[in-house]
Amino acid sequence: MTIEVLRLGHRRKRDERLTTHVCLVARAFGAERVIVAEEDKDLERTINDVVKRFGGKFEIKTGVGWRPYMRDFKGTRVHLTMYGLPLKETIGKIPDGNVLVIVGSEKVPGEVYRMADFNIAVGNQPHSEAGALAVFLDRFTGGAWENNTFEGGEIEVIPTAHGKGVKKR
Amino acid sequence: MTIEVLRLGHRRKRDERLTTHVCLVARAFGAERVIVAEEDKDLERTINDVVKRFGGKFEIKTGVGWRPYMRDFKGTRVHLTMYGLPLKETIGKIPDGNVLVIVGSEKVPGEVYRMADFNIAVGNQPHSEAGALAVFLDRFTGGAWENNTFEGGEIEVIPTAHGKGVKKR
Repeated sequence: MTIEVLRLGHRRKRDERLTTHVCLVARAFGAERVIVAEEDKDLERTINDVVKRFGGKFEIKTGVGWRPYMRDFKGTRVHLTMYGLPLKETIGKIPDGNVLVIVGSEKVPGEVYRMADFNIAVGNQPHSEAGALAVFLDRFTGGAWENNTFEGGEIEVIPTAHGKGVKKR
Repeated sequence: MTIEVLRLGHRRKRDERLTTHVCLVARAFGAERVIVAEEDKDLERTINDVVKRFGGKFEIKTGVGWRPYMRDFKGTRVHLTMYGLPLKETIGKIPDGNVLVIVGSEKVPGEVYRMADFNIAVGNQPHSEAGALAVFLDRFTGGAWENNTFEGGEIEVIPTAHGKGVKKR
């Protein structure tokens, strides 16, 4: 099973930091790849730099047409949206296998709602695609991300009660 | 028991949307109040407008000194940071009662780490304060936010399998 995240509606200046957060949430909570519909080489560099420093296998691709990507995906398409069905009632219905989690920004084309196998609401309240993605992946993986080791990076955080600790690998 | 969120290091232009997301995550996942150290009346208006439209009780205050607020808080101070101790090992140690969840942006003063009763890492990887807050509140409340009704707003989302539904209240 692989988990991929598809980010829609990224606008370079306005969404720079939010899309960065979405990509880093995808990485931290166990996705293997993030696809950003709009091309953004700076974003690719930012994410690849985190991977180089902190390790693990994670891939970013930007400038990928979302329509063919969704259509041709071999697995289940899960669109996270505040208009969708409740998380706790739907998450158990996602079949085993590859999952593409789609997160938009403010405007998501109606076609995405129709192409998705599941439209799931992490709450029917407006909040944050980074927050929704994190909670979805936490529940979907049963917290498996907590045991990820992110091998091969340059540095590693040492969990500390009151301070900051980092060691070189 | 009440849950409050304290947002540190908000810079008006650069962090506008991220801080909005942090505030909305706080509201959606069951906090009663968000305190933003830096004054930002536009942010207050944005959040108060969501509360008016979507309901529930939620308060925002900006321009509140974080140091006295943390010091005088009657309850447990939980600072979310990638340098902290693992979530699964620490969340059960938080005593019953009021909780102040502190989320910073990129630079958090060392004093915050020392003043916090718990420094908790929602993973020791860089990702997103919106994502970390959402996962923390989801786990801390045992998903109680999924039963929140957010009474008294103007509109309500109707959970829908493939589309968008909203009704006036």
